[in-house]
Amino acid sequence: MDRARVIELLEKVRAGALDPAAAAEVLATLPLAEGEALLLDTHRELRTGFPEAVYAAGKTPEQVAEAAARLAGAHDRLLITRATEAHAAAVLAVLAEAAFDPVARTISWREGPPGAARGEVAVVAAGTSDLPVAAEAARTLEMMDVRVSRYEDVGVAGLHRLLGALEGLRRADALVVCAGMEGALPSVVGGLVRAPVVAVPTSVGYGAHFGGVSALLGMLNSCAPGVAVVNIDNGFGAGMVAGRIAIAARGAS
Amino acid sequence: MDRARVIELLEKVRAGALDPAAAAEVLATLPLAEGEALLLDTHRELRTGFPEAVYAAGKTPEQVAEAAARLAGAHDRLLITRATEAHAAAVLAVLAEAAFDPVARTISWREGPPGAARGEVAVVAAGTSDLPVAAEAARTLEMMDVRVSRYEDVGVAGLHRLLGALEGLRRADALVVCAGMEGALPSVVGGLVRAPVVAVPTSVGYGAHFGGVSALLGMLNSCAPGVAVVNIDNGFGAGMVAGRIAIAARGAS
Amino acid sequence: MDRARVIELLEKVRAGALDPAAAAEVLATLPLAEGEALLLDTHRELRTGFPEAVYAAGKTPEQVAEAAARLAGAHDRLLITRATEAHAAAVLAVLAEAAFDPVARTISWREGPPGAARGEVAVVAAGTSDLPVAAEAARTLEMMDVRVSRYEDVGVAGLHRLLGALEGLRRADALVVCAGMEGALPSVVGGLVRAPVVAVPTSVGYGAHFGGVSALLGMLNSCAPGVAVVNIDNGFGAGMVAGRIAIAARGAS
Amino acid sequence: MDRARVIELLEKVRAGALDPAAAAEVLATLPLAEGEALLLDTHRELRTGFPEAVYAAGKTPEQVAEAAARLAGAHDRLLITRATEAHAAAVLAVLAEAAFDPVARTISWREGPPGAARGEVAVVAAGTSDLPVAAEAARTLEMMDVRVSRYEDVGVAGLHRLLGALEGLRRADALVVCAGMEGALPSVVGGLVRAPVVAVPTSVGYGAHFGGVSALLGMLNSCAPGVAVVNIDNGFGAGMVAGRIAIAARGAS
Amino acid sequence: MDRARVIELLEKVRAGALDPAAAAEVLATLPLAEGEALLLDTHRELRTGFPEAVYAAGKTPEQVAEAAARLAGAHDRLLITRATEAHAAAVLAVLAEAAFDPVARTISWREGPPGAARGEVAVVAAGTSDLPVAAEAARTLEMMDVRVSRYEDVGVAGLHRLLGALEGLRRADALVVCAGMEGALPSVVGGLVRAPVVAVPTSVGYGAHFGGVSALLGMLNSCAPGVAVVNIDNGFGAGMVAGRIAIAARGAS
Amino acid sequence: MDRARVIELLEKVRAGALDPAAAAEVLATLPLAEGEALLLDTHRELRTGFPEAVYAAGKTPEQVAEAAARLAGAHDRLLITRATEAHAAAVLAVLAEAAFDPVARTISWREGPPGAARGEVAVVAAGTSDLPVAAEAARTLEMMDVRVSRYEDVGVAGLHRLLGALEGLRRADALVVCAGMEGALPSVVGGLVRAPVVAVPTSVGYGAHFGGVSALLGMLNSCAPGVAVVNIDNGFGAGMVAGRIAIAARGAS
Amino acid sequence: MDRARVIELLEKVRAGALDPAAAAEVLATLPLAEGEALLLDTHRELRTGFPEAVYAAGKTPEQVAEAAARLAGAHDRLLITRATEAHAAAVLAVLAEAAFDPVARTISWREGPPGAARGEVAVVAAGTSDLPVAAEAARTLEMMDVRVSRYEDVGVAGLHRLLGALEGLRRADALVVCAGMEGALPSVVGGLVRAPVVAVPTSVGYGAHFGGVSALLGMLNSCAPGVAVVNIDNGFGAGMVAGRIAIAARGAS
Amino acid sequence: MDRARVIELLEKVRAGALDPAAAAEVLATLPLAEGEALLLDTHRELRTGFPEAVYAAGKTPEQVAEAAARLAGAHDRLLITRATEAHAAAVLAVLAEAAFDPVARTISWREGPPGAARGEVAVVAAGTSDLPVAAEAARTLEMMDVRVSRYEDVGVAGLHRLLGALEGLRRADALVVCAGMEGALPSVVGGLVRAPVVAVPTSVGYGAHFGGVSALLGMLNSCAPGVAVVNIDNGFGAGMVAGRIAIAARGAS
Repeated sequence: MDRARVIELLEKVRAGALDPAAAAEVLATLPLAEGEALLLDTHRELRTGFPEAVYAAGKTPEQVAEAAARLAGAHDRLLITRATEAHAAAVLAVLAEAAFDPVARTISWREGPPGAARGEVAVVAAGTSDLPVAAEAARTLEMMDVRVSRYEDVGVAGLHRLLGALEGLRRADALVVCAGMEGALPSVVGGLVRAPVVAVPTSVGYGAHFGGVSALLGMLNSCAPGVAVVNIDNGFGAGMVAGRIAIAARGAS
Repeated sequence: MDRARVIELLEKVRAGALDPAAAAEVLATLPLAEGEALLLDTHRELRTGFPEAVYAAGKTPEQVAEAAARLAGAHDRLLITRATEAHAAAVLAVLAEAAFDPVARTISWREGPPGAARGEVAVVAAGTSDLPVAAEAARTLEMMDVRVSRYEDVGVAGLHRLLGALEGLRRADALVVCAGMEGALPSVVGGLVRAPVVAVPTSVGYGAHFGGVSALLGMLNSCAPGVAVVNIDNGFGAGMVAGRIAIAARGAS
Repeated sequence: MDRARVIELLEKVRAGALDPAAAAEVLATLPLAEGEALLLDTHRELRTGFPEAVYAAGKTPEQVAEAAARLAGAHDRLLITRATEAHAAAVLAVLAEAAFDPVARTISWREGPPGAARGEVAVVAAGTSDLPVAAEAARTLEMMDVRVSRYEDVGVAGLHRLLGALEGLRRADALVVCAGMEGALPSVVGGLVRAPVVAVPTSVGYGAHFGGVSALLGMLNSCAPGVAVVNIDNGFGAGMVAGRIAIAARGAS
Repeated sequence: MDRARVIELLEKVRAGALDPAAAAEVLATLPLAEGEALLLDTHRELRTGFPEAVYAAGKTPEQVAEAAARLAGAHDRLLITRATEAHAAAVLAVLAEAAFDPVARTISWREGPPGAARGEVAVVAAGTSDLPVAAEAARTLEMMDVRVSRYEDVGVAGLHRLLGALEGLRRADALVVCAGMEGALPSVVGGLVRAPVVAVPTSVGYGAHFGGVSALLGMLNSCAPGVAVVNIDNGFGAGMVAGRIAIAARGAS
Repeated sequence: MDRARVIELLEKVRAGALDPAAAAEVLATLPLAEGEALLLDTHRELRTGFPEAVYAAGKTPEQVAEAAARLAGAHDRLLITRATEAHAAAVLAVLAEAAFDPVARTISWREGPPGAARGEVAVVAAGTSDLPVAAEAARTLEMMDVRVSRYEDVGVAGLHRLLGALEGLRRADALVVCAGMEGALPSVVGGLVRAPVVAVPTSVGYGAHFGGVSALLGMLNSCAPGVAVVNIDNGFGAGMVAGRIAIAARGAS
Repeated sequence: MDRARVIELLEKVRAGALDPAAAAEVLATLPLAEGEALLLDTHRELRTGFPEAVYAAGKTPEQVAEAAARLAGAHDRLLITRATEAHAAAVLAVLAEAAFDPVARTISWREGPPGAARGEVAVVAAGTSDLPVAAEAARTLEMMDVRVSRYEDVGVAGLHRLLGALEGLRRADALVVCAGMEGALPSVVGGLVRAPVVAVPTSVGYGAHFGGVSALLGMLNSCAPGVAVVNIDNGFGAGMVAGRIAIAARGAS
Repeated sequence: MDRARVIELLEKVRAGALDPAAAAEVLATLPLAEGEALLLDTHRELRTGFPEAVYAAGKTPEQVAEAAARLAGAHDRLLITRATEAHAAAVLAVLAEAAFDPVARTISWREGPPGAARGEVAVVAAGTSDLPVAAEAARTLEMMDVRVSRYEDVGVAGLHRLLGALEGLRRADALVVCAGMEGALPSVVGGLVRAPVVAVPTSVGYGAHFGGVSALLGMLNSCAPGVAVVNIDNGFGAGMVAGRIAIAARGAS
Repeated sequence: MDRARVIELLEKVRAGALDPAAAAEVLATLPLAEGEALLLDTHRELRTGFPEAVYAAGKTPEQVAEAAARLAGAHDRLLITRATEAHAAAVLAVLAEAAFDPVARTISWREGPPGAARGEVAVVAAGTSDLPVAAEAARTLEMMDVRVSRYEDVGVAGLHRLLGALEGLRRADALVVCAGMEGALPSVVGGLVRAPVVAVPTSVGYGAHFGGVSALLGMLNSCAPGVAVVNIDNGFGAGMVAGRIAIAARGAS
């Protein structure tokens, strides 16, 4: 039921053509589409400051470019994940200011300059193979106006590098920790910091790693408190969670 | 927002104290609880003729009896599944007309006599071990006023018994087929009848049956069209699906 | 045993050359092939109005075209699933009136115009990636002369779109609900409608979705009654089940 | 190396008995135990405001009571999870002010009154069977001085109850959402709120739920952004993560 | 259609009241129940010399005794598997000559003395924990009048014992090889003998043996030709397969 | 220890230079290599009449051709499985009489004509997609001089075709039954025949068939006695087992 | 072939009744039982210094006591694993000097005093729940005369305790590292020491730990070199491997 | 904290500008980076004699060459695993003395000649398909200055070849045993030798081998003591473990 129909109804009430009890009855039996309208408004508000995201994998360059153009008309920022160079070429043809990051496999676009930083998230990668996932998380956070500090190659088998980075890790409002193989890094980090850790298992490994399941199970079974997990290779999801935490912590300052 | 508040608002409109556009604005920002009220009514209508069900496993006899008493006050029929004798004793103390079926592990109760039969469902069990699940499906269907025909011990390794039952199977509006072990029966039945087959894998078997997963996979991979599957041992769920089909087919007649 | 041999036997009985008891003995020891003939007739009747289907994946264009030509000689309609453009080219060379749908990956053919609609099925897709599976279900239903209403992009994370579609969903005789990732949509839909829901998990997702197993498990464990499940990506199977339900409900009108 | 040895070394430097370069050499070759001391201090600071926790499952009442007494000597609060009545009796004998919650299966103890509330977390349970896990999360949060709002029986198959609770859910700094079976609730909630959602799969269900794995996979594959997951039935872990988020957001106010 | 109806039909043909073509038509449309009768006869013949078997697990002593009494009326031998002492007591009360084997967990009964041996099967157990499964296979074979030679504790980690038994193993018409843990014994045996090997994985082991799945996978992946596998712990099934092989090989002599 | 050394030792005994007790001592401490020689002879005898087999998958054409040439020098027949056209070209260049079967993906070669048939095996394929596996089994059996009867497209969803083939199936000494999807065919066949059934799950299917695991589990859990299973797609292994059975049954006649 | 038969043969050679070539022929066709004798001797030697072990789980106290008495007659030491108090009582009745360790669940017995220590193994447990497994490893090592140093509660989430133990860990010839949950400890330890690490996953954890599979996968996927893994909870196996390493390293000194 | 800062502090102490207690306080609050420095030195020492390794899979030739050049500047030897010809070409362009082994898929480089052999490891491959993994282990061992003896094609189905190699196998300080399919070889070898066995499951097989999981489970469940396992196809890891054992055993001689 659109607004016009509601106003029409209320006009009848004002004109005395419909008494309030009968009008309430009509309102109570409105199709749920009315509920939709209410929700829609709320949703729009909800997403302010969060990037609209397109998952490019399995879509053609044309489909992605079309979606990008449409969304850019309605939002002030846009993130495309799992994008290839072909996706990037098609998107840049319609959104010239968009930027492609081949490591993160993202295309970012925003209207105007970034906002003031709202908190800080440390994005940690256990090994060099985890970098694409870490980069996807970082790009997601940047689109949320959250400051990112990056730590690389700090796996648990070379503990000294991790301990050397400790001071920085402890400064962050939230941490995204990406690791493949046995996925032990979030457990170790979780025991050393105070902020929440968002663990991202990566599909890095060989043999019985099962496309990241080993790391996923390792992280779910972490003996350190304060660790929560997102899906395998889901840098975007980790960035969204960590970004919401950071914004909650510092968004008002 | 309760009805009283809506009427109060409309009274203001009628009185000219609020113009329609402003009132529409207020309505558009009502809390979602309003949506709830709408949905609730719809839901009540939706469930007419479907049993209210309580899953007793893991609940104490007192908890189940308390739920039974509460639901019996609001509905005209009630089904409790996975009930033990202890559950039954507690429920019968508060609902004397309830009936316990120790094979199906159900407690049934209804206010007044059953309605006229609304279609017919054939409930088929591959072996004697599948009978509790088949009985649970049958009790569910009875509570929906659907006629049930039962077929037992018609497994695929003794094909002659199945073929002997074929005439009856073909008469049903829907079939519930329960089988454990390799779960092949729905495939064979599905190739012989015209009505939809709701397959129920049972946790019957030994060795690599994995608590019914073998049968579940067998049914999902059925080479016969017209077969859909519910969860392992879920006689209640199968009865609900098959009953809805039968009611759709014959409910109006 | 062919009919000729049976008549020959009966001629002997009529001629008094064989007494009825001896002839009954001969009939009782007929090879099972006799049973086959009986079944075959039944089968032919059984399938009236259901499309003959060919699963093209893993077959060469020539094999598919040959099968299509043979089946079109014996039936009045034909559905080829999981077809590529190459399959389509080969089939169109032998069945010029066949139609290829590249989204559904189907080739459809029928002799004469569609029959009168026999019931209505709502085909729902959670996301755009689920569309090929939904389209396969829709094409299957169309070949069964069942009316199809389509709903797209109504995933549970954007609940307002689903609620907006509720009125249409409630009108259908059966629903096919396709979803990947966590497969939650059938649970939500099943709680809002009265008709049976045929849930189709799709292999859409990343990370720990395991080719659709996550969605499959989600659907099997649905907390909503009235939901049954078919195999991953099995739009054809879902269409066959939902179509049988719709035909049972409305086929006679 | 204990502090005494370091001071002894420094005395020698002051006395001129050891030149600074030589002393630096000695310090550089200290056993790692020195590192331990440093870390230990840090750790103590780190944990301020977080409950010391004991996992009672698999431990005898005596072992748990002994651990409780020891920890209560060193900390100002204590949480024991997965405790039975026998555990509680043994702990209360040594810590009379401790409190046992039989639903949450926790024993809580603190020295002095709770601190001022540091943020608010909504703890949501899809069904009544999920309540013990939700209660464990709530008790954990209370020990962190975080305010808890509870929502029960708001599963996705009865959407109206969830929508009715929406206003409260949107007020929280973080949400803990507990669900078994298909685990769809966090996806739906995640699409309706702005704060991070910590999803807890519970081992509630039957058939192919695999002790909570179905719900776990559903949550990991959530199509809603802003959802992270902890281990099955891990109410404590979820509370720790959500509490850290709430403290970050409101701890300073 | 029973025999009486067929004869009635044929009498009409003889009397000239029905011409042969019409009678053939009637016969061709007989219900499938006729097919059943044909199959039933065949089946009875098929099973001559094979024990009728009852799987006692999950059945009450009364149910098993009732089934035993019924089957003993129709057959000349009977085997009950997975029987407890309670089952045995109940069966012996109705079939005094039955014999209970507590290791094999079987109850055996036959009318009259065993027949002449029909071939020989070697039943091999890798370790002492595999003996119950091996004993079940042996009891099954004895009921088929097949000679059994037993070999125990010949696991692959003590190769000398296996090699010492080689002469006997090579004499058998078929081998049943039972092993748990890694299930390697059938591979080694299969490389040393000429007869077919029926491998039985047992649920013996600890840690990652998964109730016999490790042994099952080991046997399915056997690098030795001539090895086929039955379900975990399925001594009865292995005996049936090996017995059929031995009877084929020597049954006629 | 080679034969020369043994004779040298015995010469010393004959010459009186070594007494028998001392010589026995020496023999008892021979290196195990002696055991090897004994075994080797036995092995050669063992394999008479069985094809030497090469698994070509993952090998280069050159490697396969080299192995073929070497084995053909030592044996009178040879079977190469999982061969491509490239493998065939390379083998034919060195063994001109070899024959490539592109459906079975085998290369066969034998010196001289086939021997007299030693028994008969029925090779059954549920669907057309199972034909390559069935053909591999058939080629293996032919190389063992076992007669093969082929049955195709007799899946359980079209039971009449299977029943029509029953007479032939019952004539075989052993059956190889190949089926994908739910793998139900061996259960049905096993209930209808007297000879052992070697079930071969095939990797045919889609969705939750898991590369043949569904069919494998279905076959392992078969409710029909007399069924044993080989690895997924292992037509060669099934042929070897069934051939050994047939040879045992008829090899001497 | 027993020694007597060999000497008889050699006597014939000495007497000139058999020429050496013929005698060699006879020896070459000896049954493999001869090979057994050779192997047996070797085996006896092989095991010197290794405990004979009995796995008590699933055996009655009488069976274990009988085995203990028999083995003690043939060996100088004995280890019984997974023993209960009932097992211990029965064994002590026949072997009064045996010692039961209720934490390790072992019964140890040796004739005479321990030998001189042959190397040192560090046995590390991540948490208190891992102690039974660590104790089983330690008892195994003691029976091998290997010195054991124990480290407890050094999990990765409390890194400072691990680093404090580093000096001791680095002194060992091999390390046994036991951990449940995510199994990360061997990765961290493996990066800090030079000796081989034998990792033992334990079945400690809750939720998605799958009885130790999470820890097992974590250890197999360890990013640290020098780590090998034994089965879940297999303290005995880990002790045997680590003991062999230590003996190789120091056994000669 | 770098050394300069520590000396500066100590100078102040010497000068009397800071008293020892205050200086100790400063030292106790040093950032953990200090711990890093200590650890780093230890690490450098730790790795002497172990090859620095690069895992080339998933890296570009340029990335690998760059890493090789950098590492060769800091170490005296270097091993690159999972290398292709393209990787080799790029590395040889910057390290002319490096050597590519196409079977092992390794690139090896060392400064100066190999050191004296430190112990011996037997590397055993069950079949020809396991050779690449065995070769990777051998190359790793060579880089550790450990002598390697190779055994090929000694699978358990041809036991005579294995027994023939026994003498050599027993001479080794450690064994690496590589096997696919059912992974039975380490069990058999482990029962015949005294030294530790490092088992490597390979991803060789078909059907239900699950990329090496069958072999992995077989090895973990080995009934032979003295067997530890590394990840699937992880020849490098097995070499590292076995090499450490051999060096421990013979490194000092």
